[in-house]
This record gives sequence, structure tokens and C-alpha cells, in this order.
Amino acid sequence: MTLRVAMIGHGFMGAAHSVGWRQAPAVFDLPDSVEMAVVVGRNAPAAAAAAAKWGWAESATDWREVVARDDIDIVDIVTPGDSHAEIAIAALEAGKHVLCEKPLANTVEQAEAMAEAAGRAAARGVRAMVGFTYRRTPAVTLLRDLVADGVVGTVQQVRAAYRQDWLVDARMPLAWRLQKEHAGSGALGDIGAHIIDMTQFVTGLDLTAVSGILDTIVKRRPLLASGSGLTGEAGDGFGEVTVDDVALFTGRLSNGALASFEATRFATGRKNALTIEISGDRGALAFDLEDLNAVQFYDNTAPEGMRGFTKILVTDPSHPYVGAWWPAGHTLGYEHGFVHQAKDLVEGIVAGTDPHPTFRDGLQVQRALAAVESSATHNSGWVHIDPPATEGL
Amino acid sequence: MTLRVAMIGHGFMGAAHSVGWRQAPAVFDLPDSVEMAVVVGRNAPAAAAAAAKWGWAESATDWREVVARDDIDIVDIVTPGDSHAEIAIAALEAGKHVLCEKPLANTVEQAEAMAEAAGRAAARGVRAMVGFTYRRTPAVTLLRDLVADGVVGTVQQVRAAYRQDWLVDARMPLAWRLQKEHAGSGALGDIGAHIIDMTQFVTGLDLTAVSGILDTIVKRRPLLASGSGLTGEAGDGFGEVTVDDVALFTGRLSNGALASFEATRFATGRKNALTIEISGDRGALAFDLEDLNAVQFYDNTAPEGMRGFTKILVTDPSHPYVGAWWPAGHTLGYEHGFVHQAKDLVEGIVAGTDPHPTFRDGLQVQRALAAVESSATHNSGWVHIDPPATEGL
Amino acid sequence: MTLRVAMIGHGFMGAAHSVGWRQAPAVFDLPDSVEMAVVVGRNAPAAAAAAAKWGWAESATDWREVVARDDIDIVDIVTPGDSHAEIAIAALEAGKHVLCEKPLANTVEQAEAMAEAAGRAAARGVRAMVGFTYRRTPAVTLLRDLVADGVVGTVQQVRAAYRQDWLVDARMPLAWRLQKEHAGSGALGDIGAHIIDMTQFVTGLDLTAVSGILDTIVKRRPLLASGSGLTGEAGDGFGEVTVDDVALFTGRLSNGALASFEATRFATGRKNALTIEISGDRGALAFDLEDLNAVQFYDNTAPEGMRGFTKILVTDPSHPYVGAWWPAGHTLGYEHGFVHQAKDLVEGIVAGTDPHPTFRDGLQVQRALAAVESSATHNSGWVHIDPPATEGL
Amino acid sequence: MTLRVAMIGHGFMGAAHSVGWRQAPAVFDLPDSVEMAVVVGRNAPAAAAAAAKWGWAESATDWREVVARDDIDIVDIVTPGDSHAEIAIAALEAGKHVLCEKPLANTVEQAEAMAEAAGRAAARGVRAMVGFTYRRTPAVTLLRDLVADGVVGTVQQVRAAYRQDWLVDARMPLAWRLQKEHAGSGALGDIGAHIIDMTQFVTGLDLTAVSGILDTIVKRRPLLASGSGLTGEAGDGFGEVTVDDVALFTGRLSNGALASFEATRFATGRKNALTIEISGDRGALAFDLEDLNAVQFYDNTAPEGMRGFTKILVTDPSHPYVGAWWPAGHTLGYEHGFVHQAKDLVEGIVAGTDPHPTFRDGLQVQRALAAVESSATHNSGWVHIDPPATEGL
Repeated sequence: MTLRVAMIGHGFMGAAHSVGWRQAPAVFDLPDSVEMAVVVGRNAPAAAAAAAKWGWAESATDWREVVARDDIDIVDIVTPGDSHAEIAIAALEAGKHVLCEKPLANTVEQAEAMAEAAGRAAARGVRAMVGFTYRRTPAVTLLRDLVADGVVGTVQQVRAAYRQDWLVDARMPLAWRLQKEHAGSGALGDIGAHIIDMTQFVTGLDLTAVSGILDTIVKRRPLLASGSGLTGEAGDGFGEVTVDDVALFTGRLSNGALASFEATRFATGRKNALTIEISGDRGALAFDLEDLNAVQFYDNTAPEGMRGFTKILVTDPSHPYVGAWWPAGHTLGYEHGFVHQAKDLVEGIVAGTDPHPTFRDGLQVQRALAAVESSATHNSGWVHIDPPATEGL
Repeated sequence: MTLRVAMIGHGFMGAAHSVGWRQAPAVFDLPDSVEMAVVVGRNAPAAAAAAAKWGWAESATDWREVVARDDIDIVDIVTPGDSHAEIAIAALEAGKHVLCEKPLANTVEQAEAMAEAAGRAAARGVRAMVGFTYRRTPAVTLLRDLVADGVVGTVQQVRAAYRQDWLVDARMPLAWRLQKEHAGSGALGDIGAHIIDMTQFVTGLDLTAVSGILDTIVKRRPLLASGSGLTGEAGDGFGEVTVDDVALFTGRLSNGALASFEATRFATGRKNALTIEISGDRGALAFDLEDLNAVQFYDNTAPEGMRGFTKILVTDPSHPYVGAWWPAGHTLGYEHGFVHQAKDLVEGIVAGTDPHPTFRDGLQVQRALAAVESSATHNSGWVHIDPPATEGL
Repeated sequence: MTLRVAMIGHGFMGAAHSVGWRQAPAVFDLPDSVEMAVVVGRNAPAAAAAAAKWGWAESATDWREVVARDDIDIVDIVTPGDSHAEIAIAALEAGKHVLCEKPLANTVEQAEAMAEAAGRAAARGVRAMVGFTYRRTPAVTLLRDLVADGVVGTVQQVRAAYRQDWLVDARMPLAWRLQKEHAGSGALGDIGAHIIDMTQFVTGLDLTAVSGILDTIVKRRPLLASGSGLTGEAGDGFGEVTVDDVALFTGRLSNGALASFEATRFATGRKNALTIEISGDRGALAFDLEDLNAVQFYDNTAPEGMRGFTKILVTDPSHPYVGAWWPAGHTLGYEHGFVHQAKDLVEGIVAGTDPHPTFRDGLQVQRALAAVESSATHNSGWVHIDPPATEGL
Repeated sequence: MTLRVAMIGHGFMGAAHSVGWRQAPAVFDLPDSVEMAVVVGRNAPAAAAAAAKWGWAESATDWREVVARDDIDIVDIVTPGDSHAEIAIAALEAGKHVLCEKPLANTVEQAEAMAEAAGRAAARGVRAMVGFTYRRTPAVTLLRDLVADGVVGTVQQVRAAYRQDWLVDARMPLAWRLQKEHAGSGALGDIGAHIIDMTQFVTGLDLTAVSGILDTIVKRRPLLASGSGLTGEAGDGFGEVTVDDVALFTGRLSNGALASFEATRFATGRKNALTIEISGDRGALAFDLEDLNAVQFYDNTAPEGMRGFTKILVTDPSHPYVGAWWPAGHTLGYEHGFVHQAKDLVEGIVAGTDPHPTFRDGLQVQRALAAVESSATHNSGWVHIDPPATEGL
């Protein structure tokens, strides 16, 4: 049998997902074949060009029609967040397996509706997955495995940050990502979501409460030139930035440990510096996305005088996902996570199990984001995060 | 003329200060000679042994008598924090220049009294200085100079942490540092004080408000064996830890920028990891005390494609303090800051100017620490920090 | 028009080249389309499986037939080195553009014949290229560009090493790579060739003489189990290792500068540690393949006190090849060089120019390897390397 | 009893040795007290100034008189290499313990005479020691201990380099260090000697043969201005550099393993980059003098997938020499080796045993240096190194 994929949207994430769908069958021995059937975009020529460039068999302009087609098995959603809920729910109800780019939605309400739809779909054997793709960087999967194996013992502290610097230049214009009505959130939802998800994924613990602050460092930016669309060159006049540039927050994990978080677009010189460190009573683990083929491990049970952070190059055939690629010492990059994501979704579909992160996982992140926003508007007081009502969600 | 020094106390800090007094005259061309006159400790044989070992001419047991001696010019206080105020004020009133180990005091009230005494003494030409010695690590002084020179432009964000791991072992007994009545505070006052001071020193900005949380991870520890004093081996029974193991807080600087702080004794594998990163619109600077001969500088004005963090080895003769030591590439260590501290105090005395950090600086740190504690007991709400009443303080 | 590619061979390198051919058209805007037409292997089912897995339209078993087909434009050779000359010359004479995996050949004589064939083919508009793919790692291309731009000034010293450790385990059996009759050479030809090529490429200088030594550290290894082919599990008995485990040599570059080289399979803990450092009177550049998204640059003309190695993350859109991939800070890996190689060959074919490295470049490396072997058998005396007779070769 | 020290010479090394003698008694519990009795220099005011600055009780101008004094126990020689033999032999024959800065001498003949004198002196209970001080950097001593403990197994390869860049500037004048009649040798004897000694010390193996080349990159430099002494500013005219700028050589160790060496003053951006890596069948160890508080250890016996280089911070109380200094995580610097050297010499004198490195060790290094020079003048052919005739030497 062949799984036929429709991808809705074709921006930067569309390119990355396309690589995933192209490469997964060539690199891994998948239990089923995959066909890149159709890419959907409102602008017909642009969608056709994307199809030609990335190897989709055809293109289309109406996602509703595509979602309704009998010959589509998987709907991969890479549109902006405000359309996720509508498309994903429609696709699930049409019996399509869904891969939805993160964040799951722009609001908790939307995310709840999606998680409920995923729950109903699961009962019919239909799978749903959120695209927190960094989970599938081999080093991050290894972190999760090592924590689960107990190498750090009890998690006692987590330190996570995602730092970029693309807004440091005050002449950068007021693109859609800086407007709340379009983007929903700034650094918090865009990159803060990643470190929340990674913390929960790697430790196996949920965030139960947060205290935090949001800040907008450059409050007014040049308006976009007329005709340049939602992104583009600066034009005349200035407008107000309505999302956060930086989010600083502290969280309490379900085992009682504290975790610190920083999401910022103003860390001058840091391009994509997602870093996380998990400290436990038996050891510690650290990771840096700018050096993504490595994990740092401190074994607190090693003999005294011989302890230190060990830089494990995560390129051994025994490491997660790595065996299908190159020999030891040959590195992978950013896009490989998308290949692994496609593989795991296909395997989940064939096996009849939901690959993580589930829509429930996505909803939990959404609730944490909302709690940070709430705390920020209440003098940084602590805000409790309700866990999703049932495991089955 | 010769400056005759009396040192009150002789623990770990006494050893470090003794190195400072021994080495400063041999390494730097001081404007005055220095005599290590007397070391004071309650236990006469221990004080005598310390004098012999570290090269103090004599020892004594009563600090009041020593402070009153006509032949003493400088009183160097390295006792626990609860005695700082009494000794320092007495010494200043006796017309002695004072070097007081950090933190200035255990309470804001004590620190205020000390700052007032320093203000009165200054009017009489008597100097007072707090021992935030890390300021005099050449790399840290260079950070300050570079920020002042504008290489980072406007400071927009600061990320500071001081992470140790000596409490990760739950069998570590309940030493005095873990009891509030003796230590006053835990990680916050001990190491959090350093990153507050360093942030203010390097940026030239004051903290104006904070929001934070304190946490005690291991809440009960073995009692000390009877007869083992305030530190020592574990004995029978358990007692409650009454200070914080970890302090996480966010601060607002006087120019409006946010700064994040983490002080912890539970960062498994981190021994003395004081790290700070200052991000501005023109560049960024970073420092790590575990690699203390280097500064990382990102020049955001460099040509595109050539930007990156430059690891400046702070061992050039042109770097602060370095010219008096070894050729380029020959590294310094922890203790050199104490040599520089002694040098700067002597130079300040001869020049008739207060070397930084002044008691006012120490008081400002004390207020910040108290504000964090207050926030922690008020659901992490923001607490304003009053600046010292007058500049002249 | 479409360029139809035939790939001869389908081992590890076949996988990497296949990725190159699959991805280049999707990532770059090529001037011509590419069709993965046929993969050739002696074993029909294995070749068919490779075709299915990697997306080749068909498979075949006789390379001579394929090379003779009218509907093939490019012949990509990824067979072992002893067959390169025969296939490449036949393909060039049949008017096919040729991409030949490194090393160009197993002997200087074969390499000379290939370079001559390439010279004749060039006159007819047929292109030939050697697969020193590391040249197309963006950071390595950037090194070359920066040296050419003069940022290091006059090259005064080069330090290059390629260190692996897969032979440290003495139980590793006597695979074909350890037998001179099959492999031709050991560490020298396999990985030493890379650092010779990279040194010449990056500096723009040729090696003119070498002095060196070869050594075999583990001289006898377990024979392969019968029936396990040329690689596989250890069986009974031991045999002699007839190639080098380590090659240490010094070279003289055409501008008179010295370069040191180390190629070893016994650098315990080093998996794929190709490192190179170029020192000049105005600056220095360094690169490490285990951290392949970065270049280290030391600007000797920067102000005193501000100099240091700058770690340039080679992920900016302005960096070589990077603009077609992901945003700044998103890293690439090992295989991307193969994509860039396919792109550059296609562009060279359409433009009518030979993409580097040419067969002449490959021949020059072969001569350097032979000179090292000669020096090693003559007490490490210096051996001159003749440059290829004419530029036109 | 008190050991009274006379130091002959007072340049840069005199400063470092003075720190050693000042600090050793204050930091370590020495079995005997030490008195800094007299410093000797030809220029009386300069010697007096050195005495005052560094704490020597008196100064003198005639080393022969000082060596003959009954009240001197230890003669510490920090003069240029051409005077070592005469002073050391006279001191030993006068019954003084001798510490002689490296290199032991400028020629093998001088070194042999010194080793013979040390042998005769040892029979009378008089100690002799060479100042290869880097051996006493805690991390280097730890390397030696770990190799001896077998953590790397059989040493199979060594890679050592000492790279500086102070001659890259072609305007640097022709100081005495660049003239063979004064300096004896260039990079080879100055810094190559260190990596030879460190290799032999850490591995416990002798060099038995070498092949190498010396090169002078900038062959003519500005003459010194008249009146500026042997060092100083550039004047009119140019002169020939008669020593090597760079030495590249390969050595064979007594167990058959190869070692590569690079000593250069032209490694742009490298200030004092002494690096060494020891590879064995069970593990590897690496060290970098620019990061001297750390050792990198790769444990090849660790579980697969968990291997990597562990950065051991050599600041634990259990590490060599460290217990006498500061708590874990507090770093040491360049000069601490001189303190450890003074300590070990005093302990050796009291215990009646020669502290390493002995004059025999110094002679062995001298022979290796001479062998490199011989090889360099014989087309890099291999030159055998005779081991010192007897262990007792």
C-alpha cells in the first residue's frame, strides 16, 4: 500500500517538510511506501512552482477539496497557526491522518478542540501528530532516552533557553510576526514553545505552574512598504510592535523541580541557540542546537577526580535514527529531524499507534504558554496549569 | 611610608587575602609599601599558625584591641557576615581604612549603618571597600571597560548565572551554611550576590526591581556529629535545611532592560560556573569564570558573514592588570583578583579616592538580595529596590 | 533539456551521491533538470534494490552497456579505486560528462591516463570532475574564499590532520581496506588524500615536495570468516596488515611555506576529525569537520587587545551554498556537500566550464601520495613532486 | 633547619622562580623552612631592585662568591643557557643543591658534563633538578598519573605542538633570541624542548630517533637600534635571522609508537598553545596549556554510545597539588607550577631523593634536540638518539 500525502501550505516549513517526505523512504526501510501527492496553496502558480521544485505530483488551491479527496491518506499542515484548527479538525473528521506544525494553535480553545478531534479520530484508527520536530534531532531523542534510563537520577533542576538575535536591528520592519493579530504571540509562542515542549519531552514531566514576564524591547518599528505583503522592506512611518521580544519565566515541574526558561529575539550573536541542561542527583545532560550532533553528559557516579562533562558525538550507529545515515563521525543537520518525523508518522500509522508528540502534548504546551501570558499580566504571580482532563484525550 | 595591615579572621578567605597582601607589592609598583602586621583569631594557636604560614608578623585574639592600635592602617575583615558591621564600623571610626569581604552584611539595616559609617569616614580621608573580588579578574574588568567604551551599544538584555553542585549529594550534612541563623541566606546571598554585583558593575546600571523564587531541594540533611563544630562529618539524626538551595530571579535594570539570574548549588557538574552575557544593539560580551582568562565578544557591526563570537585571551600586556604579570598567553587564576584588590586599595588610599566597590555598592547589592527574598515570599511579585539615598553615601 | 545520470556502483558513496542527485534539483534552481536514470551494479537484485530505495529509474549490471547508451549524459563513478580509470576513460571517450569519486585512481599512471582523457574530452566540451566533496562543505568553500580575499595575507604555515579511530580495536578483522592489493593504500590514500586536496584547494598552492613516514601499528589481524566476503566478521587465524595505519608527513608548498600532515586511524576518540589551520601574516583560519558549520578566524589586523579567534557560524544566507537552504543558525551536515557537488557539476556542464576539482587536481593529489610513499621507503628523505606537465592537462 | 636559596639571574624566569620561593612555604606544609637569601646579577642596582621587589634578603653581583658561601643551600639558576653548565657544575661541586632552568644547556657536551656532575653530587646527597616547570601544572601531572595507571592502555600515538605567534610581525627586530650565537636555537630549543620533555614525562617513554626539518620564515629582520641592548627597538639596517622559526619533526618512542611534534613562532593567533594528545588502545588524553585547568579524557572502554571526551576540571582537592590551594572550581594559572617546583625540590632535599626532572632527563632532551638539528641538515633522514649511558647518570 502507498500512503499519499497532501501538504497544506508551502513556506519555509513546507520546504522542510518536503525534504522529510522525499528523504524518509530513501533512507529508512519504511513499512509502507509514500507518495508526495499534492501541495496546496491559495496562489495557483506559486503552489505549482513549489510542487515542481520539491517533487509533489500536483498542486491545488482549495484545501477543503483536497482534504475531501479519497486518494489522500495524510494531511500535513504547514500554514500559519490561526488556520491549524479548522484544517486539522476537518482532515481528522474526513479520516485523514494529520501532521500539524507547531504551535498546535493560537489559543487554548482551538487547541482543546483539536485535541478532542484527535481523540475521536484515534478511536477510528486515525493518527494525529504535532510537529515539534526538534524532538527528533538524534541528540534530543538520546537525552530523553538517557533521562528515562536514569542516568541523571531524579531531575532536580532544568535550565532552558532559546536565543536568537534577528530583531536586534531596530530598522527591521513591522512584519506580521510582530503583530499580535497575525502571530498571536512573539518570542514566547514561536521559540518559547520549543523549550517548553523539549523540557517536558526530555524529562517526562509536565509543567504545573509558571511565573514570568514578557517584554518588548523595540516598541515601534518601520511600517512595511505598501505592496510588500506581510513581510518585506521598510516603508514610510512607524507602527507599534504588539508581541513580546523576550519572555523570561520560571516553571514548576510535576515532580516539584524548578525549571528556568528564556526565549528571546534579542540575544545579540545567538542565531538559533536552543540550549537545555537537566540536572539530577546522579548526573546532568546538556544540549545546544547550534552544535546539534553532540550531547554533554556529566556522570556524578564516576570516580572522584575523573568526573567531567563528556561530549558524546551523537553519530554512532547505535544512536537514535543515526544507523540509517552515515558512518560514525559524519554529522547530520537541521533538516534531518523532518525526515525522522515523516518516518515515525508512517510507522505509527502502519502500527496503529499515535507517534508523539500527540495533540494532547500540543495542548499542554498551549496551556503553558497561556499561563505565562497570564502571569506576565498579573505582576509575575504564579499561574497554575491544568493538565488535560484525561489521559485518553 | 608603610601601610600596616591587620586581618580579622583567617579561614578560606583569609588565605586568599593573605596571598593578595603578599603578592601585590612584589608584582606591582605600589605607591606605598605594605606590611602584613597582624592576623586576628579567637583561637590563639590557630591564629599564630596562620600568621606563621601566611607571613603575618604577629597574631592576636581580640579584634577590638587591634583595631585600636595606632600602628595599624588597614583593617581587612574576612570573618563571617554577621560580624562585619560591628568590626567595620569600629575600624572606620578608629580611622582605619577598611576592606570588608562580601556580602557587606547579613541585613540591609547593618549594611546601611556600614555605608553611613563609610560616608562619615570618607569625609576624614578614610577609605572603605567591599571584597567583590571577581570584579578584578582581568576579564571582568575588561568587560566593564568594553561596555563603557560602547562596544555593545545600549545594553538590552543580561543573562547571569552562578552554578555550583556541592549540595547535590543528599548525604552532605547540615553545616552552618545551611542554617539561616548562621548564614543568613543560602545560594542567594552567597553566590547570587556575586552575579548581582557583577551585572551592576559591568553594565554600569543598577537593579531597580526584581521578581523571584527561592527553593530548597533537599529539605532535611544529616545533623553534624557532635563535637565536629559548625562544619564536619555527619552524625546521627536529621535536621531541617533553612536556607535556599537555588534562587531564580528576574531583574529590571535602571535603563529598562531585563536581566535573568540563577544562583544554584544543585547544578550537577558545575563547580564554579559564574557566567554572564550582556547583549546590546551593537554587540555582546560573555564570560565564564571556569575559563577566566577569556572574554567572548560579538561585534554586531562587523561585516555580514564575518560575525561571530571572538574568544579574546585576556593575557595581553594591554589588558587590565595583566602587564604586571607574565607574557601573552600565560594564564592567571582565581587568586590573582585578591592581589589586584590589595593593589587598588593601596593606590586608592594613597590617592585619597575610594576604590570600587564602595560600601554604597555593597548596600545596593544587599537591598537587591532583600528584594528577592521579599518577592519570593509574595508569590514572586515584583519588588522595587530603593537606590541608596544619596550618591555621596 | 534534461541531464540523465548513470551511477556506477552503489555502496556507501552511492548512497551519498544519490542524496546529492535527489536533492540538488529541489534545493537549487538548476539551469537544467536532472534525471536519475540508472544505477549499475554487478549483482542484479542488489542494484535493483538500490534503484528502488534511492529513486533511480532503472538498474543495470554492465557498466559498458550503460556508458554506451545514447540517453545517458553523466556517468557518476562510485566504485572502488582500481576500476576508476577504465570506467572514466571509457565514459569520457563516449562523450559522457564524468564525476569520479576520490581518489582519482590507485596509481599515478592511471591518474595520468585519466587526466589526459579529460584533457581530450574538454576539447569536445565534455566535463570531468573528481569527488573531493569536502571542498563543498560551505565552511571549506568559505575558507578558500577568505584566503583568496587576502584575510590571512601570505600563507606562512599550514597544519592539517585527519584523525579517525576505527582500527584501535585490535580484534577488527583484516578487511579489504587493510590489504594493499585491494586498497592500494591505507590511511594515506583514504584520508590523507583529503587533507592534501583541502590544503591545496584552500591555499591555492601546490605541494612541491614531501618528507614522511608510514606506520602499521597493529601488524596482524584476524582473518575474515570464510564466506563473509571482503568485509565482515573475524574467523580463524591471522593475517598480515599490508597498508599503513598512520601517515605523518611534512610538505613544502609552492610559495615556500611548510605544511604538516597527519592521517591516522588510531587517534582514539577521534571519529572524523579532519582539522586544518592556515596561518598567514595577516590572520589565521581554522576548521574542524566534526564542527562543520563553523570557521574560526583570527584577524591579526584587529586592534590590539581585541584579537582572538572568531567562531563564524557558516549558516548565513551570504555564505557559500547556504542561501538555498535554511535561515541563519540552522545547520547543515555531512551529506550536503554531495548536493552542492551535483549542483556545481550541472552548472559547469551547462556553462561549458570544468568545475573543480578537475582530473588534473586529482592527479596532483595522486602524485603527492606517491611521493609520500617514496619518502617513507627512503628514510623520510624529501621527494620532489612534479607538477602536471601543462596547465591545459 | 632553614634552606637558604640563592638565585642567579633575575629576568622573566627570575620573577617566576621568585613567586615559587615566596609562595611554596605559605601554601604547602614544607618539611623545612625556606629563606630567600640572595639574588645575583651583574648589574648591582638592577639586582638590588629585584631583591627589593621580590623579597630576596640581599643582592650580589658575583655568582662565584655566592656559590662559595657556606650559608647557601640551594642555587637556583635562571640565567641564559650558555652559562648554565659553568654555574651548575660549580654549585654542585660546592655541595649546593641546584635547580637549573631549562634547557639544561646549549650543547649536548655541556649537558653531559652537567649530568656527570649531578651524578657525582648525588653520591654525596646533593640534589639537581631541571626546570621543566610545565610538568608541575596539575593537569600535566595528572596526565602522567593517568597514563601510568593504564587508563589509555598501550600508548600508540602522540601528537604534540607548541605554537606561538610573536614573530609573525616581520618588523619585529633581530633580538638575541634570533641569533644563533646567543640563543643556540630558535623555536626548537625554546619551545620544542618543552613538548619533547612533556611527551617523555607523560608517557614514561624515551624518544629513540627523530626525523625533522627546521625553517626560518622571515629570514632578515631590522637590526636593533644601537644602545638598545640585546633586545629593544628596531634601528637602521637589516640582519640575518640565524635560528629556526619553526621545527616540524616526527619521533619514535621507545615502545615503537610514533609521535609528531610542531614548534613554531608563526602560528598566527596562538599565544602559548602547548597541546598534547596521547592515544592508546584503551583511551586517550589531551591537554592544552591555554586551558590549563582541564584534561580531556576519552575512555575507550566506556559503553558504546556513551563514549566521548570528558573535560575533567583539574581543580578537585584530590588532584595533584590542588588540595593545598582553593576549593573545587577555583582555577590556577601559569605561575603555580613554579610554586610546586620549589615545594618538590625542598621535599626531595629533605627526603634525600632527586626530584624529577633530573639532569639525566635534561640531557636526554638535549640529545633529542641535537638529533632534530642533525636530521634537518641531512635531508630529514632519521637520526638515532643514544640513551644516557647508565640509569645512575
